[in-house]
Amino acid sequence: MTEALSKLDRVQVPALDEILGVPFKVLDDGFVRVVDYMGTDESIVQAARVSYGKGTKKIKQDRELIRYLMRHRHTSPFEMCEIKLHVRVPMDAWRQWIRHRTANVNEYSTRYSVAIESAQKTPPEGWRLQSTSNRQGSAGHFPVETGAELTRQEAEIHALCDQIYKLRLEMGVAREQARKDLPLSTYTEAYWKIDLHNLLHFLELRMDVLAQEEIRSYAGTIGNEIVSRWCPLTWEAFQDYHLRGLVLSNMEIQILTACAAGQSEKAVALVKEFGLLLDSEQGMKFTLELREIEAKLQALGIAPPWGPPSRL
Amino acid sequence: MTEALSKLDRVQVPALDEILGVPFKVLDDGFVRVVDYMGTDESIVQAARVSYGKGTKKIKQDRELIRYLMRHRHTSPFEMCEIKLHVRVPMDAWRQWIRHRTANVNEYSTRYSVAIESAQKTPPEGWRLQSTSNRQGSAGHFPVETGAELTRQEAEIHALCDQIYKLRLEMGVAREQARKDLPLSTYTEAYWKIDLHNLLHFLELRMDVLAQEEIRSYAGTIGNEIVSRWCPLTWEAFQDYHLRGLVLSNMEIQILTACAAGQSEKAVALVKEFGLLLDSEQGMKFTLELREIEAKLQALGIAPPWGPPSRL
Amino acid sequence: MTEALSKLDRVQVPALDEILGVPFKVLDDGFVRVVDYMGTDESIVQAARVSYGKGTKKIKQDRELIRYLMRHRHTSPFEMCEIKLHVRVPMDAWRQWIRHRTANVNEYSTRYSVAIESAQKTPPEGWRLQSTSNRQGSAGHFPVETGAELTRQEAEIHALCDQIYKLRLEMGVAREQARKDLPLSTYTEAYWKIDLHNLLHFLELRMDVLAQEEIRSYAGTIGNEIVSRWCPLTWEAFQDYHLRGLVLSNMEIQILTACAAGQSEKAVALVKEFGLLLDSEQGMKFTLELREIEAKLQALGIAPPWGPPSRL
Amino acid sequence: MTEALSKLDRVQVPALDEILGVPFKVLDDGFVRVVDYMGTDESIVQAARVSYGKGTKKIKQDRELIRYLMRHRHTSPFEMCEIKLHVRVPMDAWRQWIRHRTANVNEYSTRYSVAIESAQKTPPEGWRLQSTSNRQGSAGHFPVETGAELTRQEAEIHALCDQIYKLRLEMGVAREQARKDLPLSTYTEAYWKIDLHNLLHFLELRMDVLAQEEIRSYAGTIGNEIVSRWCPLTWEAFQDYHLRGLVLSNMEIQILTACAAGQSEKAVALVKEFGLLLDSEQGMKFTLELREIEAKLQALGIAPPWGPPSRL
Repeated sequence: MTEALSKLDRVQVPALDEILGVPFKVLDDGFVRVVDYMGTDESIVQAARVSYGKGTKKIKQDRELIRYLMRHRHTSPFEMCEIKLHVRVPMDAWRQWIRHRTANVNEYSTRYSVAIESAQKTPPEGWRLQSTSNRQGSAGHFPVETGAELTRQEAEIHALCDQIYKLRLEMGVAREQARKDLPLSTYTEAYWKIDLHNLLHFLELRMDVLAQEEIRSYAGTIGNEIVSRWCPLTWEAFQDYHLRGLVLSNMEIQILTACAAGQSEKAVALVKEFGLLLDSEQGMKFTLELREIEAKLQALGIAPPWGPPSRL
Repeated sequence: MTEALSKLDRVQVPALDEILGVPFKVLDDGFVRVVDYMGTDESIVQAARVSYGKGTKKIKQDRELIRYLMRHRHTSPFEMCEIKLHVRVPMDAWRQWIRHRTANVNEYSTRYSVAIESAQKTPPEGWRLQSTSNRQGSAGHFPVETGAELTRQEAEIHALCDQIYKLRLEMGVAREQARKDLPLSTYTEAYWKIDLHNLLHFLELRMDVLAQEEIRSYAGTIGNEIVSRWCPLTWEAFQDYHLRGLVLSNMEIQILTACAAGQSEKAVALVKEFGLLLDSEQGMKFTLELREIEAKLQALGIAPPWGPPSRL
Repeated sequence: MTEALSKLDRVQVPALDEILGVPFKVLDDGFVRVVDYMGTDESIVQAARVSYGKGTKKIKQDRELIRYLMRHRHTSPFEMCEIKLHVRVPMDAWRQWIRHRTANVNEYSTRYSVAIESAQKTPPEGWRLQSTSNRQGSAGHFPVETGAELTRQEAEIHALCDQIYKLRLEMGVAREQARKDLPLSTYTEAYWKIDLHNLLHFLELRMDVLAQEEIRSYAGTIGNEIVSRWCPLTWEAFQDYHLRGLVLSNMEIQILTACAAGQSEKAVALVKEFGLLLDSEQGMKFTLELREIEAKLQALGIAPPWGPPSRL
Repeated sequence: MTEALSKLDRVQVPALDEILGVPFKVLDDGFVRVVDYMGTDESIVQAARVSYGKGTKKIKQDRELIRYLMRHRHTSPFEMCEIKLHVRVPMDAWRQWIRHRTANVNEYSTRYSVAIESAQKTPPEGWRLQSTSNRQGSAGHFPVETGAELTRQEAEIHALCDQIYKLRLEMGVAREQARKDLPLSTYTEAYWKIDLHNLLHFLELRMDVLAQEEIRSYAGTIGNEIVSRWCPLTWEAFQDYHLRGLVLSNMEIQILTACAAGQSEKAVALVKEFGLLLDSEQGMKFTLELREIEAKLQALGIAPPWGPPSRL
C-alpha cells in the first residue's frame, strides 16, 4: 500500500468535544451524554480505502464514498467508529434497549447499591390511548382531566413502592431481594458503548414511528443531537437511505410498474393474484399488507387503482 | 478427508426427547422446558474431528477428547450443539439473564399483549438478610415472624400494582404505557436459544455461589436436569474443570509453592512483597485478595502460614 | 399464556431429512451438505407467537405472518431456526465466507493434518475478464484458446506447490509451516452452523450479482437447494423482499414521484439539485449514483427523463 | 448517582499517543501499529463504578479494583476500552487471526486492487521440525544447510506464483480470479478494531506457547508493546492471572491436596481411580492428561509420586 506509515495524530471531532459529558435531557428525569468516541466520517473513508488500496484514487469525494458504502451495505467501515454514552433510562425502556446485543454495557447495579430514587412520572397530558389498528401501539392522548386521575394513581403506586423498598432496606433485607418490587418505571443508568454501524441499526428501529414513544425520544436525541455532530456525512446519508427511504418487494415492484404505466386493471389483477385482496362474503377484503402497499404508493404520489381502502 | 459423504440420520438424544416440552418448575411460578435441540456429545467429537481430519485416529475415546477440548479451551466444537428453551422468569431475574448477549431471544411482548398475571411471591421463610461481607450478596434468612410481615407488605404492593394495571387497561390506556409500573417481580416468558459453549459460560457464572439465588435456581435446573441429560460427557467435564475447579494467579502459584515446600517465612514474605498484607496502625491488614487466597489454600488442605485471618 | 405446557415431539422436516448428509456438488471439487438442523417455518411462527402471546388469534395464516415479520424486520423469530452444514470450499472463497462473524465454525486444520490434496482448477472456458465498469468484478470470458493457456499455467503452479509441499513434509518440516505456500485455491473443509436470520443475510450478500462467482455458486446452492426445502415460506418471502426487491432513498422517492407524475423537468432539476448530474467542461457528467438510479427507474418501467446515459 | 454530570475532557494516554501510527515490525515484512484508541485503565475503573454506584467509596485503589475485576471475571468494564490497529500479516496467519469473531475488520481487497507484492520469506535458520509429541506443533529447527535448500525452494515457488499472477493481470484476467493461486504466505493488510476484553482473550490464546510462532510474534508485539503502554494496570493483572496463571480441575485439586499432605499412595490411587493411569500389557500407561498434570505439579514444586513419566 502506498500510505506512508508515519506518526499519526488522534482523530478529533471538535463539535463533539464541545458537548463531551454534557447531558441531553430526555423524559422527565433521564439523559444521554457522550463520554468518549473513536473516529469520525474521515475514519470511515480511511477504513474503506484500506480495503480498496491503491484503487481508490478515482473516488474523490468523501460524501460520495460514504453514500456509496451505505447504499451497497458495505457496513464494515462504519464499524470503525465507536461511541460511549452515559444514559439514564426507565427500566421499562431499558428492557427494549438491552435487546440490541452488539453493544458493551455497564449498568448501575441495584444488588450492589441502593436503587436510583426516581421513577418516570407521566404528566396528565401524557397518557396515551391504545391504538385499535396497531395492537402494539398508541393512538392519541387522554383528555387532561382523565390524565390527571391516572397521574394521581401513578403517584400512589410510586409512593407505596418507594415506601416499601425503603422499609425493606431499613429492616435489613438484602438489596438484591428488596428491589424485586420496584416498578418498571424506576430509572437506571448505564455506560453504553457501540460502533456506528450498530448504532445506526439501533436508531433505524428505535426512531421508527412504530417504536414506543419513550425509547424513541432517546433514539431521536442520540441521532439528532449526537450522531449529527459526530459524523455529519454519515448522518445525512443514513437519513436519506434509511430513515426516509422505502423498501419495495418484488410484488410491489410489479404493482408499481403497472400503476406507473397507467395499467390499472393489470395492477388490480396482480393484487388479487398475489392474494392481497381477498373475496369474502362482505365483498373485497384488504389484507394488512395491501394497506401498507397503498401507503407506499401514496408516498410516491400514485393513487391506488383498486378503489377506496376498506377495513382489514 | 476420509469421511464417507453418505446419507445421515439425524442425531437424537432419547434422554432429552423424553422430557421435550415438559416443564421443570422453578421458584413459585416459573419454569424451564426444552423445546428443541441440535447435536450431543457425539456431535462435539465429530466437529473436533473435522478440525483434526485424518489425524484423529489415535484419539480413541470420546470422553478423553471432550476433556482435552475443555481443558485447552478449544471451544468451537461445543458451539456445534444448540438448545432452545422456553422459560418463565421474574423480570428481575430476566434483567440479569438477558445480559448474556450470545443467545437468540423471543420474549413475550407486553406491548402486544396483556402482561402475565403473576408476580413472584416470597414466602415468610424466604426473606434474606443483606450480607455485610459481600456488598452484593445475601447472608442468612429473617425469622419467620418478620418474614410474614414482609410477605404481607409484598402482597399489598402486588395487589395495588395489579389493580392499577387493570384499571389502566379498562380505561383504555395503551398496553405499552399501562405496564410502566408493573413490579420487577412480574413474570415474563421467552424462547431462549443458545449454543452449548455459551450455555456453559452462562451456567458457570449463574450457578456460582455468588450469583443471586433466583437466577441460580434456574441455572441449576438447566445444568442438572437438562445439560446432564443432553451431553453427559460434556457435563461431567464441565463440572470437573469449571464448577469445581480453581484458578491460580502467578502470585498464588508462588505462594502455594512456598507453602507446599514448608517455607512459611518465604510465603509470608511473598504475601507482603505482593502488597496483599499491609502494615497499618492497628497491626497487619489483610486485603480482600489475601482472604480469597486463604480460601484457595484451604481448598487444597494447606493452612495459611501467616496466622489467623483478620477482618479486612 | 394459554399454551399448554405438554410433552412435545421434535420438529422434523421430511424434505430435509431426505437429503441429510447428501453432498450438493459445487465448483470442480467442492460441496455443501446438511448435517443437522433445528426448526422450520412453523418454529418461526411459534416463536413470534410467544412474543405476541394471546394477541395472535387474529393472525391466521403462517405465510401472512412470515411475510409480516420479514417486511417489518422482526428478525428474532428467524433466529430460532438453526442449520449445520459441512462444506468443502477453496480457501480463496473461504476467506470471504468467514467474514460472516455470526456463525459457528470448525475448520479442517492443516496444522494438525496434511492439507487436502485438491486445488480448484479453472477450465479453459472459465477464465473471466476484468470488468472495466466495476473495479471489483468480472465481465465476460476469455476465448477458449487463451483460456487453455491460462489453465496450463495454472496446472504448472498447482504441480509445483504440491511438489514442494510434499517435499517439505517428507523432509520433516512442521505441517504448520510447510503449508505456508499452498495456493489460495487449495480446498478446505468446515462445519458451519448458523441461524436462519444470519444465513439469509449471508445469502443476500453472496447471491447478489456483485458477489464473486465462486462464493455465489455456494450461496445459490444453499439457498435454492437447502433453504427452499427447509423453510419454504420463509424462502419465498425472502426472495420477494430481499433477492428481488428494491431499496429507494428519499432522493430517489422524490425523483420517482416526479417521473411517475410526468414531471420530467422537475425530475431533472432534482437530480441536479442533489448533485447527481454535474456540469463539466465536456457537458453533463453522470455520477455513479445516477447510473444506479437509472437502473432502478428502468426496473419500474420508467424511462429516465434526462436523456441518454453518458459514461461516468 | 452522585457523579456530577459536567463537561468532560477526553481521556488521553500520552504513552500511546507517542507511538500512534508508528509501525512495530513483525516477521520479515509485517507490522502492527495503533491507529486510534478509546479509554484506559481509568475508564475501566470508571465503568465499574457506574455499576457499583455509591457503593464504591471503600474501594480505594484502581489497581486493587482491576485485579478484583479480572479475578472474578467481571469482564464488562474491560469492554469499555477499544483499540484500532493497522496490521500487515501473511494470509496464513490472518486465517487464524480472523477466527476471532468479536473484532471489526476492514481488510485490503485483492478483488478491488492488485495484491500486495510481498510474501513472507523464511530464512535458512527459520525452518522448524514437526513436533512428534504435539501433532499441531513444531519442535526445534533444521540445520542451516538444509534450511538453505528449503529457502531456495521457497524462493522458486514465490517467483513462479508472482510471475503467473502478473501474467494473468497483464492478459486481463479479473483480479478476483487472478489471485486464486497466490501463496498463503502473501501479505495482506487490515484495520482491526477490538475491545480490550476481547483483545486480552485473543492474546491469551495467541501468546500461548502452543500457538503458532508466526501469530505468536504478532500477539507478543500487541501485548508487550501496545497494551502495556495503553492500560498498564490491566496488563499487569492479565499477566498474573492469565498468561502466568494455572487452572486446576477438581480432580487435580484432589491429587494436589494428597501430594501436598504427603499422601503419595492416596495420590496414586486417585490417579488410577480417575482413569488417568491405565494398566496395559506393557505396564502402566500414562494418559496425555496425566502428563499435563505432572507439568502442573512441577510448576508448584511438587514431585509427582507415581514415578518417572512414561511415553503416552
